[in-house]
Amino acid sequence: MIRTAIVGASGYTGLELLRLLACHPETVVTAVTSRQLAGQKITRVFPALAGRTGGLDNLAFEPPVGDDLAGKADVVFTAVPHHTAMEIVPGLVRAGLKVIDLSADFRLKSADVYAAWYGPHTAADLLTEAVYGLPELYREAIGSARLVGNPGCYPTSIILALAPLLAADWVDPGCLIADSKSGVSGAGRGASLGTSFCEVDGGFTAYKVAGHRHVPEMEQELGRLAGQELRLTFTPHLLPMSRGILSTVYGRLVQSVTTAQALDQFVGFYQNAPFVRIRPAGDAPHTLDVRGTNYCDLGVFVDERTGWIKVVSAIDNLTRGASGQAVCNMNLMTGLAEETGLTGLGLRP
Amino acid sequence: MIRTAIVGASGYTGLELLRLLACHPETVVTAVTSRQLAGQKITRVFPALAGRTGGLDNLAFEPPVGDDLAGKADVVFTAVPHHTAMEIVPGLVRAGLKVIDLSADFRLKSADVYAAWYGPHTAADLLTEAVYGLPELYREAIGSARLVGNPGCYPTSIILALAPLLAADWVDPGCLIADSKSGVSGAGRGASLGTSFCEVDGGFTAYKVAGHRHVPEMEQELGRLAGQELRLTFTPHLLPMSRGILSTVYGRLVQSVTTAQALDQFVGFYQNAPFVRIRPAGDAPHTLDVRGTNYCDLGVFVDERTGWIKVVSAIDNLTRGASGQAVCNMNLMTGLAEETGLTGLGLRP
Amino acid sequence: MIRTAIVGASGYTGLELLRLLACHPETVVTAVTSRQLAGQKITRVFPALAGRTGGLDNLAFEPPVGDDLAGKADVVFTAVPHHTAMEIVPGLVRAGLKVIDLSADFRLKSADVYAAWYGPHTAADLLTEAVYGLPELYREAIGSARLVGNPGCYPTSIILALAPLLAADWVDPGCLIADSKSGVSGAGRGASLGTSFCEVDGGFTAYKVAGHRHVPEMEQELGRLAGQELRLTFTPHLLPMSRGILSTVYGRLVQSVTTAQALDQFVGFYQNAPFVRIRPAGDAPHTLDVRGTNYCDLGVFVDERTGWIKVVSAIDNLTRGASGQAVCNMNLMTGLAEETGLTGLGLRP
Amino acid sequence: MIRTAIVGASGYTGLELLRLLACHPETVVTAVTSRQLAGQKITRVFPALAGRTGGLDNLAFEPPVGDDLAGKADVVFTAVPHHTAMEIVPGLVRAGLKVIDLSADFRLKSADVYAAWYGPHTAADLLTEAVYGLPELYREAIGSARLVGNPGCYPTSIILALAPLLAADWVDPGCLIADSKSGVSGAGRGASLGTSFCEVDGGFTAYKVAGHRHVPEMEQELGRLAGQELRLTFTPHLLPMSRGILSTVYGRLVQSVTTAQALDQFVGFYQNAPFVRIRPAGDAPHTLDVRGTNYCDLGVFVDERTGWIKVVSAIDNLTRGASGQAVCNMNLMTGLAEETGLTGLGLRP
Repeated sequence: MIRTAIVGASGYTGLELLRLLACHPETVVTAVTSRQLAGQKITRVFPALAGRTGGLDNLAFEPPVGDDLAGKADVVFTAVPHHTAMEIVPGLVRAGLKVIDLSADFRLKSADVYAAWYGPHTAADLLTEAVYGLPELYREAIGSARLVGNPGCYPTSIILALAPLLAADWVDPGCLIADSKSGVSGAGRGASLGTSFCEVDGGFTAYKVAGHRHVPEMEQELGRLAGQELRLTFTPHLLPMSRGILSTVYGRLVQSVTTAQALDQFVGFYQNAPFVRIRPAGDAPHTLDVRGTNYCDLGVFVDERTGWIKVVSAIDNLTRGASGQAVCNMNLMTGLAEETGLTGLGLRP
Repeated sequence: MIRTAIVGASGYTGLELLRLLACHPETVVTAVTSRQLAGQKITRVFPALAGRTGGLDNLAFEPPVGDDLAGKADVVFTAVPHHTAMEIVPGLVRAGLKVIDLSADFRLKSADVYAAWYGPHTAADLLTEAVYGLPELYREAIGSARLVGNPGCYPTSIILALAPLLAADWVDPGCLIADSKSGVSGAGRGASLGTSFCEVDGGFTAYKVAGHRHVPEMEQELGRLAGQELRLTFTPHLLPMSRGILSTVYGRLVQSVTTAQALDQFVGFYQNAPFVRIRPAGDAPHTLDVRGTNYCDLGVFVDERTGWIKVVSAIDNLTRGASGQAVCNMNLMTGLAEETGLTGLGLRP
Repeated sequence: MIRTAIVGASGYTGLELLRLLACHPETVVTAVTSRQLAGQKITRVFPALAGRTGGLDNLAFEPPVGDDLAGKADVVFTAVPHHTAMEIVPGLVRAGLKVIDLSADFRLKSADVYAAWYGPHTAADLLTEAVYGLPELYREAIGSARLVGNPGCYPTSIILALAPLLAADWVDPGCLIADSKSGVSGAGRGASLGTSFCEVDGGFTAYKVAGHRHVPEMEQELGRLAGQELRLTFTPHLLPMSRGILSTVYGRLVQSVTTAQALDQFVGFYQNAPFVRIRPAGDAPHTLDVRGTNYCDLGVFVDERTGWIKVVSAIDNLTRGASGQAVCNMNLMTGLAEETGLTGLGLRP
Repeated sequence: MIRTAIVGASGYTGLELLRLLACHPETVVTAVTSRQLAGQKITRVFPALAGRTGGLDNLAFEPPVGDDLAGKADVVFTAVPHHTAMEIVPGLVRAGLKVIDLSADFRLKSADVYAAWYGPHTAADLLTEAVYGLPELYREAIGSARLVGNPGCYPTSIILALAPLLAADWVDPGCLIADSKSGVSGAGRGASLGTSFCEVDGGFTAYKVAGHRHVPEMEQELGRLAGQELRLTFTPHLLPMSRGILSTVYGRLVQSVTTAQALDQFVGFYQNAPFVRIRPAGDAPHTLDVRGTNYCDLGVFVDERTGWIKVVSAIDNLTRGASGQAVCNMNLMTGLAEETGLTGLGLRP
């Protein structure tokens, strides 16, 4: 059994990690830290995790402990805010632990770009080594990594939608639009007016329209796929629902392509990817079909009237967009089959 | 008092018309028809409309009656499906009634375009006379019209977002993207699997991605504003909420513009429009702020990194996108102030 | 025009008061205070209230000001927490203002009972004078009151459901059960984990099962109606929706009664009450039919198999359960018709 | 591997059965019938079930086939309407299949009672043999049964809440009230106005207040526990959410009991029940904690002021209230551990 620890488990990504690891056949959770909840039983805070079978009745939150996790765990998930992660991760890596960081701190290759969007990076030497944890693009490298920067939720949905098009040089890198809609859990578990029920339910809005910190991560990966620097026009929106991201991505075609040809390109590009499902022609994905799972569902549509291609991408932001992808990365880093512990199907309705 | 009648009042646009007209200080509802509900008391079907003060306790649905509405009403709202409207409306106009048609039948100027998207038009001679009922663009013409084609919900939200930009020649007419998200009431009141609660709640999807019938209406009006034919890339989505449309519209700037300049352009363009509210710089509109009202709220954002401009537009699809706009058109057609009976504020939360 | 002021308008009851007063034909809002929001424009905080027609574009929140409201207003609504209200209200009353207090501080007649549930009362001398602001029971007294204690949301829904039965001595005062379900806005506008979207949406729970502070207020009024002290078994629940309370109230019949007889009793009891609507036999009320209105809809069912009677009661907790009822009380206190400014119909869907 | 078949799998209970069986380690689904969907691939209708790992990509719906399932399956789940089940089940049992019927047809012991609530029973001879499939009460009998009548969703939540109290003779059998609130999926997957999104979202109502067909099933089992015939006052309500039932059950105590004593009684009564979780004193269960699982969470509260006891019970109506309980029954009938394939934890948020 692989021994796993979670640093910073008081939020929704921590809760989702616990849900997945509790049911994972090859892991055991040995330590769960939270500054805020230290000393409390996990099942008192998260009653959903109780149960004599598969539940976590005997675990309690511990105070943050630093490098002594080395004696307790083989793999550590760090689910703390950016800037906090860069303080913790180097020590964990030095202690010989495999680390999957769910913050933004190890996703970017350039310390300068990081500084421009987040502020100075204090562990920049690890940026080169860290592998961007999107298995469809970096499966091999993840397999031998000590440190994985787990992708952001929006980037996961958008990069998977555009990768087959940019790899084929089908779209103009200067005309890429990503219009994304996210469930509220993407904002985390802290209480705030903007995510309180009465401010969200029954309505819809855009936010951070003028700029969102996931942009440089997307431009890094999309640019690599395109073989050139590019700019992405991106708008996030807040859906009145808890889980799920749907991104509608628009690219201007530079050659004539039919929807059937485009679907073929996607099916071929993802033929070895167990967690990408291409929807049949004419069908758009639905976030409910991926709820609670590691799947990314894609729908592809060529608009022959206008010469643009649309790709619609659906993921669960907490699973594929965070904790499920982290577990998938753990599987690859420890030699397990990519799908281990991730075979549950979407909860619908 | 202006006598009003509604033909086809069993759906949500009918219900919303009744709600607004019951509280309108200058109108009385004299006849309400519905093939399906004929003979039933209105308040049995719609208990929300009951009440000794302002309610409609004494009205019942009548069978469809044809031209004898002339003796009962001054203004008729036709809230029937397209194709049905074109059968009914000519007789009502000939009988001297002012008609506001909420279907798609009298929105397009070209019978050929209509035929391409909806099938043959049997009252094409009225297409030239009918005025497109968007008061911000056609206030004068509506004032003297006998027949108004009330705009679609998506077109209302998108045309108002783009009009100031196209009128100023600021954006490339070949690169217009409209990504729209609608509440479920836009699909009408009929029962269907796709709009049943368990298929919609907690999830999100796109639909009719390959083509939606509101496109020609938008291209007609946007092209007129641009002074040239153009194509719009449009994607509708279904939100897990009942009321509201938010459209995020993207245009490629052909000249350098700041957000402040863009906001000035919008404020100026709509200075005489009581139902358009421009949000302060940095703020995006929220559908809850317009719920139950005739307002259209607009947020404007220049993305200087990419050279695109984003306009975010929020309306209530049943009020501004249908019945409220119809009442506004009635006001203009009968010489009332544009805002009469439409002064309620958004129901929030 | 009646000059009105609101003390403590940063919450949802304040927002709802502003929405109603902005559209009220006989009032003008002259002052709006909020410690937290002082200095901000009202429409920046609440964009729904903007609009050249009927909106509140020119008002800003003021710091709490004390008794100098006397020169600015005829009627003051105090929408502050309990204990704060008892500090403010006596001065306002002394200054000659008519006061409608939306907290719990002036609902109970007994300072001892107040102390047992809320702590010591520092303005107990006003408890006798204050009128319980439920118009169906105290219309006359409200008309001549200087100070009205506006009822709680749960008590409004439950007292109206039981009053006709207790007045007729049809039910056993020792076997009264009220099972109530409230929308989230009843918890106020402050951010908290328990009312954040992801904790509420898609789920349902009970809260304060062991005891809720609305109990003494209900037992006071129900006991008065019954002519004897009584105890109520009450359970509140939290609905995944913003507005609305539905209470299902159970009474053990002490005599044989049919549903038809019970309905007659309710219709008779409320014959002069413009804001109570009795649903036809077999129909239960729906919170959406009362949304945004001052109505209380009641459904009555005798269960002949078990000998219990059920009354189902629906109100909007922000309107009838707080601000709408407060406006209704203002109307009565100032000699206006009870319905003035409250004639809007339920927003459905 | 146990071969399983589902008869009538086009609804939500069918979909939930497929979700659970696809992930069950000891079963294989060999046949899935649906009159309405015959010939269609399962994953085209239910895209959530697609996936190379664990998915059902190779199955299609078959037309209803009758007794030849005997060669294909060891266990059959019948998920058809009542009256249809009684036509199908006898043949399946005669053919040697173990049958779990999810309709109401084999829950009642008395053909007369069945007739009074549902109409004549045509397979009354099987009523004696059929075991009521509530494992907490009938674990042994289920283990040796050929035919199990899978309990209704409301009865599951209410019987589990009352069983420890009736078994201990703590409450008056003449004063039992069950106030239940269900998510919309309880109404099935067919399109209807009453379950369409816009009629449900944002609101709440009661339904079938005058009588619901689950009453006789509850009175049968509660009466057996009480050792005497009894009557239950029951009211179902419709929650604006898809999954989950919360029942608040009220009993009049006939002896003095504290909350702590009551909790002890519940813990003891369910000590061998892996799927019942008793919440700590003061905590009410939340439907989200049981979402997608077979758990029933119970909270217990003695109201010493009034002498009533309240039990709050939460289940997922599709899992514990239907398909999860059916899988649990299958486990017992085939000698597997009760929890096999049911170890997933609640999806929260």
